[in-house]
Amino acid sequence: MTASTTSTTAVEALRRCRDLVTPALQGAVDRLDPASREQASYHLGWTELDGSPGNGGGKAVRPALALLSTEAAGAPAGVGLPGAVAVELVHNFSLLHDDLMDGDTERRHRRTVWAQWGAPSAILTGDALLALAVEILLESESPHAAAAASLIARTTRELIRGQAEDVAFERRGDVSVDECLAMAAGKTGSLLAASAEIGALLAGACPAVAAALRTFGAEVGAAFQLVDDLLGIWGDPTVTGKPVLSDLRSRKKSLPVTYAVHHGGAAGVELACWLAGSSDDEKDLRRAAALVETGGGRDWAAAEARRRMSLAEKALAGVDIPPVARAELVALGRHLTDREF
Amino acid sequence: MTASTTSTTAVEALRRCRDLVTPALQGAVDRLDPASREQASYHLGWTELDGSPGNGGGKAVRPALALLSTEAAGAPAGVGLPGAVAVELVHNFSLLHDDLMDGDTERRHRRTVWAQWGAPSAILTGDALLALAVEILLESESPHAAAAASLIARTTRELIRGQAEDVAFERRGDVSVDECLAMAAGKTGSLLAASAEIGALLAGACPAVAAALRTFGAEVGAAFQLVDDLLGIWGDPTVTGKPVLSDLRSRKKSLPVTYAVHHGGAAGVELACWLAGSSDDEKDLRRAAALVETGGGRDWAAAEARRRMSLAEKALAGVDIPPVARAELVALGRHLTDREF
Repeated sequence: MTASTTSTTAVEALRRCRDLVTPALQGAVDRLDPASREQASYHLGWTELDGSPGNGGGKAVRPALALLSTEAAGAPAGVGLPGAVAVELVHNFSLLHDDLMDGDTERRHRRTVWAQWGAPSAILTGDALLALAVEILLESESPHAAAAASLIARTTRELIRGQAEDVAFERRGDVSVDECLAMAAGKTGSLLAASAEIGALLAGACPAVAAALRTFGAEVGAAFQLVDDLLGIWGDPTVTGKPVLSDLRSRKKSLPVTYAVHHGGAAGVELACWLAGSSDDEKDLRRAAALVETGGGRDWAAAEARRRMSLAEKALAGVDIPPVARAELVALGRHLTDREF
Repeated sequence: MTASTTSTTAVEALRRCRDLVTPALQGAVDRLDPASREQASYHLGWTELDGSPGNGGGKAVRPALALLSTEAAGAPAGVGLPGAVAVELVHNFSLLHDDLMDGDTERRHRRTVWAQWGAPSAILTGDALLALAVEILLESESPHAAAAASLIARTTRELIRGQAEDVAFERRGDVSVDECLAMAAGKTGSLLAASAEIGALLAGACPAVAAALRTFGAEVGAAFQLVDDLLGIWGDPTVTGKPVLSDLRSRKKSLPVTYAVHHGGAAGVELACWLAGSSDDEKDLRRAAALVETGGGRDWAAAEARRRMSLAEKALAGVDIPPVARAELVALGRHLTDREF
């Protein structure tokens, strides 16, 4: 496939999956108590603060992985629908709580739930989405519903471990590249891995297929995080929606930064000194970005992202799954990790 | 049974159930990530801040209900053990989040988790306990594990609805007695009802027995909340551990207060005016307590607590369950609602 064919395939698969999951997700959110429903509906981009319709929210990457993984197991996408709803609910539970913990007042140029309604609302609505995810899965008719709900519970604890490490790392100056990778595996990789596995699980796929899909999701997640960290420094603000050099401005110990600090020789030492200081002068920020690059952080992260994406594709190549589902999964993985940086 | 026999039976049943659930609960908490494990262990009263052993925490009422409900269904208590662990985990998830939302810096004369470790820690550890509850249930060997996990998820959403209403009511001056009762049914009743049902569910009890146990738990919960609200005004500080007239000091719209405001004639009008003000002069607090009493709030709450406890006993009388389990459940219900006020 050419890059543009890949991208078209991914965009079409995302649209098809989103059209499938949205009504089911809306049906689930409709069950919430009135306050949680209003806040979840706003957070998901379905309504604006004045009650007018919203622009529809995110790409729904995790539901797409869940539905494509159902098709990869040879079942119709509908079999994995409760799984697709559940992973999107868990993703949004974690966003509601993370925005509050990180003190972020905006997400995608809109006020966050805690900033608008207060901390208790974000805590309770997040809690409700997590409980709802389990509820939806256990109501499904699949004989594998309990296994899928168990996967969701274990994944949630992995997410929490990753977020707890992220919070703890902010107070530490000596975080290693391996610790950073393990944190990202919890915070980003675990839910993408579960998303890519849950559909196959609900479809009763053989363990080898489910494991391959899980590995695919975990490796795509690792590549995605590396690319995200590169965009956080060198991303085009008109594309990322974040200010230029955003992650350096907040002194985030992202993967390229951590690599350069530990393996970048003199540049790494200078970068570590800058991180410990408090200057956010534009000239200093540009100098810090140059130090990450001189220290090898940019090249390492780009190469590691490519290596992880190729491991993802290799995992799928090792099992017998329908070619259309495989092509769509690979296209989606590349679409998520081939972004410009 | 005399009052003192009832109390002895209840205390012995609580001790026996607590001895059963504690090792299983510790095994569950041991699985948490290090930060969540440390905070959960402190919160549960197993360790102190300096790492020394704690005094062991609460009475574990909910696990006791779960284990007695298992025996009421004719099964050994061990069958309901995952349910007992799960309800205690959910109870503590809600305490961790509620303490943060309510801004409470102390619980049972010890610093709360958010006050000690910060808000993110209380959010994440609470989230982890909720996920762990589902995980533990779905690992149990009972063929009814999925039904029990589904009950836990639905109950969690009821808890959240109750807490959301509680938060919203603080900003409203016109909350009715029925709204207050519905809020308490969510915040206190739902988890006690689920605790009294979950053991029977795991034991595969017939629907009539499970429903009777559920009603028992819900009615005990209602009676318990009414008594708790009476103690919040007239409780002996050396017994409750809270300052005298505590709930009036915080202007809590508790059940006796709400009743007096709506049905207390002139006393109710004066009480409503005081609630809208900001005086916390000791004389004014005593005057407010007298207004709740003149307005009929004290008598109504005491009578309603007795009525709810007798509905609880009536529910158990309607089904065929082993006499020992019935006697222990009734004794436990009375023990929780016969407190001095």
